[in-house]
Amino acid sequence: SNVSALFSSPHRRYNPLRRQWVLVSPHRTQRPWQGEVNQATGFSDVTYDAACYLCPGNERAGGHKTPAYESVFVFDNDYAALLPEAPAGAESTSSSPLLRAEPETGRCRVLCFHPHHNLTMARMQPGQIARVVEEWQAQYRELGADPEIGYVEIFENRGALMGASNPHPHGQIWATRHVPDEPALEGESLRAYRAEHGGCLLCDYLAEEMRQQTRVICENEGFAVVVPWWAVWPFETLVLSKRHLRSMNDFSAADRAALADILRQTTIRYDNLFETSFPYTMGFHQAPVTPGGHEEWHFHAHYYPPLLRSATVRKFMVGFEMLGMPQRDITPESAAERLRAVAATHFMDR
Amino acid sequence: SNVSALFSSPHRRYNPLRRQWVLVSPHRTQRPWQGEVNQATGFSDVTYDAACYLCPGNERAGGHKTPAYESVFVFDNDYAALLPEAPAGAESTSSSPLLRAEPETGRCRVLCFHPHHNLTMARMQPGQIARVVEEWQAQYRELGADPEIGYVEIFENRGALMGASNPHPHGQIWATRHVPDEPALEGESLRAYRAEHGGCLLCDYLAEEMRQQTRVICENEGFAVVVPWWAVWPFETLVLSKRHLRSMNDFSAADRAALADILRQTTIRYDNLFETSFPYTMGFHQAPVTPGGHEEWHFHAHYYPPLLRSATVRKFMVGFEMLGMPQRDITPESAAERLRAVAATHFMDR
Ligand SMILES: O=P(O)(O)O[C@H]1O[C@H](CO)[C@@H](O)[C@H](O)[C@H]1O
Ligand SMILES: O=P(O)(O)O[C@H]1O[C@H](CO)[C@@H](O)[C@H](O)[C@H]1O
Repeated sequence: SNVSALFSSPHRRYNPLRRQWVLVSPHRTQRPWQGEVNQATGFSDVTYDAACYLCPGNERAGGHKTPAYESVFVFDNDYAALLPEAPAGAESTSSSPLLRAEPETGRCRVLCFHPHHNLTMARMQPGQIARVVEEWQAQYRELGADPEIGYVEIFENRGALMGASNPHPHGQIWATRHVPDEPALEGESLRAYRAEHGGCLLCDYLAEEMRQQTRVICENEGFAVVVPWWAVWPFETLVLSKRHLRSMNDFSAADRAALADILRQTTIRYDNLFETSFPYTMGFHQAPVTPGGHEEWHFHAHYYPPLLRSATVRKFMVGFEMLGMPQRDITPESAAERLRAVAATHFMDR
Repeated sequence: SNVSALFSSPHRRYNPLRRQWVLVSPHRTQRPWQGEVNQATGFSDVTYDAACYLCPGNERAGGHKTPAYESVFVFDNDYAALLPEAPAGAESTSSSPLLRAEPETGRCRVLCFHPHHNLTMARMQPGQIARVVEEWQAQYRELGADPEIGYVEIFENRGALMGASNPHPHGQIWATRHVPDEPALEGESLRAYRAEHGGCLLCDYLAEEMRQQTRVICENEGFAVVVPWWAVWPFETLVLSKRHLRSMNDFSAADRAALADILRQTTIRYDNLFETSFPYTMGFHQAPVTPGGHEEWHFHAHYYPPLLRSATVRKFMVGFEMLGMPQRDITPESAAERLRAVAATHFMDR
C-alpha cells in the first residue's frame, strides 16, 4: 500500500500542535555506533541517603531543613531560576530594537514524591502516585490564583542522563508571569483549530488514534497514551485525557486516580522496554492561569525519553536536528508496537 | 543602572531570528550538582586507527573502501537518513487532516576533514581548514545545482557528548528537497525585517554588537564572533560575515581563508576555556538553493556547545526548557568575557 511504501522510506510528518515537521528515517539504527555509551541506570536498595538534601530530616542549602515528611513534600527551590519580585531598577530594555530584554518573575518549587530515596514513579504504588497528583492539583490551583502568575509548568527530569541533579524521586514546578513559548504555541494551534473546525484538535486527534489503534499503547477510563504521529524522540509518548479537561482544575477524584494509574502504566512499560530505570523528562501542558475560560485547552502530558538503541545508547538531537529539523530513526508505529508488546507489570516484580 | 539590575536578576531576552524568548537566570550555577559528570575529552596521539572506517585505506559498511586520501574526502553516507528517490508508491498521505505525511528526498554526505584520526578543527593548520571550507563551498554549489534539492545543511557534531558516532575529524552535509523548519524560520524573520526596515537584520545586529563590544569575542577582516544577545547554550556563539554574503556561493578566496581563520580562532578559544577538547555541534545557515535571489539571507554559523560548569559538567536542556522555554544559567555577557579572556593560542601548544 501507499502507506507502507511511505513508512518504510524517508518521509516527513507534520505536528499540528507545534506546527513543525519531523523527518522520519526508518532503519537508520542499523548504522554502526562508535559513539557515547552511557551507564545503565540500575535500581538501588538505599531508601535513605545521608548525603541527599531531599531525604527526610536532612539539611539543605542556606540552613534549611527537609522535614521528616511521610508522603509528599513541597518547598521553594533553594536555587530558584525565577524569583517572585524583580529588583528595584530592573526595567525592560532595548538598547536597539534587536536587543530586547525584560524582567521575568515567578516561582520555582520542588516536589518530593516520596521519602524513599530509591523510588521512581514506576516503582511507586498507585496510592502513592495519587498523593503526588493531588499535590500537583493543589499547586496548580494555588500558584494559579496568584495574579502575578500566568503559567504553571509542572515537570519531572528523571535520571542523570536527563540532567536530574539528584536521583531522589522529585519533580519541579516553575510558575512564570508570562506564558512560555511552548504552551503559548500549542495554545495558538488549539485556538486556531477551534475557530476553524469548532472542535478540539486533541479530542479529534485522540478519536482518530483510537480508531486506528496503531499508535495506542495503553489506556484507562480517564486517559490514553499514544506515540504521537509526529513523535520526535524515539519512544516519545503523549498522555491525553479522554474528556476535554482544560487543566487539573477540572479534575475530579476519579480523574486524579486515573492520571496516577496511567503514569504508572506508562513508566512501567518504559522500564520494561530495556529492563532499566528508564530516563525521561516529562511534564504537563494545560490551560494558562491568566484570566479567561481557555476553552480551547486540552490537558495532556509529554514524555520525552532519550534512549534509542538500548539502556545505554541514546538518541542525540544535535547537528541536523538543531540546525535543520528534528529527525527520528524508527517509525512511531514501531515504537508503539514495542511499548505495547512489553509486560504491563514491572520486570523487577517478576 | 537599569541594565545591571536587570542583568543580575532573572529576565527574558528576545531572539528576533527565531522569534523566541530565552529565560536568563544568572548565578544559578551555584546550586549543588549531584547529577551526571561526563568524562573529559582528552587528546590522543593516534593518527591512524585500524578500526576507524574514516581513516584512509580502511573498509566501510557495504564493502566500500575509504581511499588513501591526503586532505579532505567526501562520500555518500552509508546509512543515509535521506535518499535521492522515494520508492514507487510512496505518496503523501493524510488519513485525517491531523495525520499528514509526505515523502522527503535528499542526500546525506560525510566530509572527512583530514586523514589524521586524532585531529580536531582546533588543532588543524589554517591551510588545512581552508581545504575544508573549499570543499564545503564546492558541495554547496554542486548539491545546490540539483533541482531536486531545496536546502543544503552543512554541520559538524564534535565529541561523543554531542552524538558524534566517530571521533575522526569529519562533518556532514544533509541536502533536502524542502527547506527545513530552522532555516525556513530564520528566512521568514530576515524577509520580514527587510520588508519593514529595508535593511538586513543580521547586518544591523552585527553593527550594534560591534558598537557595544560586550558580547564580541574575536574577529578578522571577514567575520566576527559574538555570544548572541539571545544565546541559549552557555557558551553558544554566532559567527557572522561582516559583508552581506547570502551564502558560500558569494565567497571569494579571501572569504574562504577568513572563514577558516575564524573557525580556528573560535575552536581554539573553546578548547582553552576548560583545557579540554571542547564538544559542540555547529553548522551554517545560508540562502536556500531554491530559485530566487534570496537577497534577505545573511550567511552565518551557529556553535551550540553543551558544557556549562567544567570540562565534565554540561547544561541539560530538559524539563522546563523542553516543555516551557529555553533557560540559561549565566549571562551571555559573562560567557563572552570568559571566551575573550582565554588565550588566542591553543593551550596544548604552550
Ligand atoms: O550521523 P552520525 O554522526 O552517526 O549521528 C549523529 O548526527 C546525526 C545528525 O545530526 C544525528 O541524527 C544522530 O542522532 C547523531 O548521533
Ligand atoms: O533543577 P535541576 O534538577 O537541578 O536542573 C535540571 O532541571 C532544570 C529545569 O529543567 C534545568 O534548567 C537544568 O539544566 C537541569 O539540570
